[in-house]
Amino acid sequence: MTADRALGPNTYLIGEAAGLDRLTTPALILRLDAFEQNLTRMEAILQSAGMRIRPHAKTHKCPAVALRQIEAGALGVCTATLREAEAMVAAGVNGVLITSPVVGPPKIERLAGLNLQAEGLMAVVDHADNADALAQAARTAGATLAVLVDTDIGMHRTGVSSAEAAVGLATRIAAADGLDYRGVQGYSGQVQHIENYAERENVYGRQLDRLAATVSALSDAGLAPPIVTGGGTGTLGIDVQRRVINEHQAGSYAFMDVEYNLVEIVQGQNTSPFATSLTMRNSVVSNNAAGFVTIDGGFKCFATDGPLPELESGTPGGARYEYFGDEHGRVVFAEDSEALPLGAQVELVTPHCDPTVNLHDFIHAVRGDVIEDIWPIEARGVL
Amino acid sequence: MTADRALGPNTYLIGEAAGLDRLTTPALILRLDAFEQNLTRMEAILQSAGMRIRPHAKTHKCPAVALRQIEAGALGVCTATLREAEAMVAAGVNGVLITSPVVGPPKIERLAGLNLQAEGLMAVVDHADNADALAQAARTAGATLAVLVDTDIGMHRTGVSSAEAAVGLATRIAAADGLDYRGVQGYSGQVQHIENYAERENVYGRQLDRLAATVSALSDAGLAPPIVTGGGTGTLGIDVQRRVINEHQAGSYAFMDVEYNLVEIVQGQNTSPFATSLTMRNSVVSNNAAGFVTIDGGFKCFATDGPLPELESGTPGGARYEYFGDEHGRVVFAEDSEALPLGAQVELVTPHCDPTVNLHDFIHAVRGDVIEDIWPIEARGVL
Repeated sequence: MTADRALGPNTYLIGEAAGLDRLTTPALILRLDAFEQNLTRMEAILQSAGMRIRPHAKTHKCPAVALRQIEAGALGVCTATLREAEAMVAAGVNGVLITSPVVGPPKIERLAGLNLQAEGLMAVVDHADNADALAQAARTAGATLAVLVDTDIGMHRTGVSSAEAAVGLATRIAAADGLDYRGVQGYSGQVQHIENYAERENVYGRQLDRLAATVSALSDAGLAPPIVTGGGTGTLGIDVQRRVINEHQAGSYAFMDVEYNLVEIVQGQNTSPFATSLTMRNSVVSNNAAGFVTIDGGFKCFATDGPLPELESGTPGGARYEYFGDEHGRVVFAEDSEALPLGAQVELVTPHCDPTVNLHDFIHAVRGDVIEDIWPIEARGVL
Repeated sequence: MTADRALGPNTYLIGEAAGLDRLTTPALILRLDAFEQNLTRMEAILQSAGMRIRPHAKTHKCPAVALRQIEAGALGVCTATLREAEAMVAAGVNGVLITSPVVGPPKIERLAGLNLQAEGLMAVVDHADNADALAQAARTAGATLAVLVDTDIGMHRTGVSSAEAAVGLATRIAAADGLDYRGVQGYSGQVQHIENYAERENVYGRQLDRLAATVSALSDAGLAPPIVTGGGTGTLGIDVQRRVINEHQAGSYAFMDVEYNLVEIVQGQNTSPFATSLTMRNSVVSNNAAGFVTIDGGFKCFATDGPLPELESGTPGGARYEYFGDEHGRVVFAEDSEALPLGAQVELVTPHCDPTVNLHDFIHAVRGDVIEDIWPIEARGVL
């Protein structure tokens, strides 16, 4: 068979009975029942707090996923990069918020161009020079660009450093011809994976205090922010309790992974409100040794910044995964007598979903053992 | 400007004066002078030992690089996957050896189809069932497939486990209608990065003894292998000394990285015969804090299975790189008073070149500060 590169080598299996076990691997799998349940649960959780979601598309980089999130009630999607935003807009996704500053003349010019085609596009700024450059590019393009002030609430990655600086930048934006002041962003990445709820609340609570103080300062200056955006899957429970932000940026909740499955998302609940919907299918490519087999997934298949992938099904009890180079991993059995035949498939929970998805071109959307559809990961690639 | 996705957003800079400093980032850079020197040096090193190179294209996944390697004297290229082989063949690269077993009916059928179009294509097998399946697919397609016996010389990833098993499998291949027996492969991955030469020689020397014994056993059985292939950049010095293999599979020598720059490739020579030709260009996207700036490269820009990226130029002395999430890193300065302006570019040596290249779509081929060409990384993606 000839591989159809548009949807990959498994295109011929769409809708076929028992297509799942006939996949060419490695293949990224999305269990649609669990995925849809995650979207529904997120809407219910946020609705009870009067909040909305603009989920982060850096998790999936896939317009097909974004459109389903919007269908389920999302305001649009967040993106980490201009490239992701371009891919989303090209696929008809409205309400895109780019959550990292867009810097440098070539990207700013692209952003101004994208703003002409996109409905509800927003960017963030954390520096007066960047605000001025965005304003000028928007004016040159003949449009107004909606922007939020990015504030550093304690992560020290991007964002202005104080409430005073936020007021100063918001004032500049509000006065700028070409810009439309829409509010503030306060995101904290490193706290998302603190596994214990109380510990996470202790650190993140103080960060939300800073964000709340910035919101107050802006309001006092006559710049009350219509949008206060932030939060991730790990801080969801706290964000819903505190209600400092009114738009939530969680992304991983839709897929989940080994890392987030360890996090106590809702206080006192060991069971996550979200189910693992994303997995990897791999195949045995060598089985000449006792006690393990070699499978077709290594550093180029799984993200290596987090924990190990976890074997899910199709493997004898007690088996574990180990990296075995760029293109290979091994399944190590609890007993030397256990084995899997050449070509057998195993399924694994991905270690850290965002950078794992970024390694792949296609999401295989599965219900039961049928591949309902294949979705290209259009925004993969960093430029 | 509109991004030309075929060659990416920097297409308009090809041939422009000082194009390097105007790049949209993150951008993978290949310094052509160093790259060409690496190819020339490799040819000289192997020629003196009567060996040839079929360099591993899993490093670059880029047909443009493969064609230059062949122009410099390479026999063809190795690939780790069928997908890489398909991309190479489609771009006119001959002499492709797929170094990992191709398993399962869909991939075997694709391999048989590729074999009809490709000149000099070869595959490896480490299991009788797989040899039989390849033979049948080749016969059905009406052609003969060239195969090597993959032998495990101590890495325990793929390959038959003993000289006897190698003879058994080679006999089966030689007798099979549809297959053409071409020799053996004996590759060892984990030894490549043992930094000390003597330690590496101690471990790898015994592995080469096993490979030599297998070659003898095959010769005794009337199956003297025309091709004995293996070796990597880290074992080059030993491979040239020992001359057990006659075709070398080194890949990283063309680019080099932080990891390989630590390895004593030639005994007693602290200076590598190969120069760092591959780097990453990143830009400052936020500089609101004292002592560091945030740049646009994190887990989705650099491979995280090895050491940290190393800052190369454009940064004050003593500065170092730290990961800062999926899309961000930080440049931490030796002194709080040091800084880099918003939009400033820095250049970094990649940590582990193979999986880093796999994260990107384009190689920017640079001489001096001019971008001579942009090469798509066609074989990126795991399926």
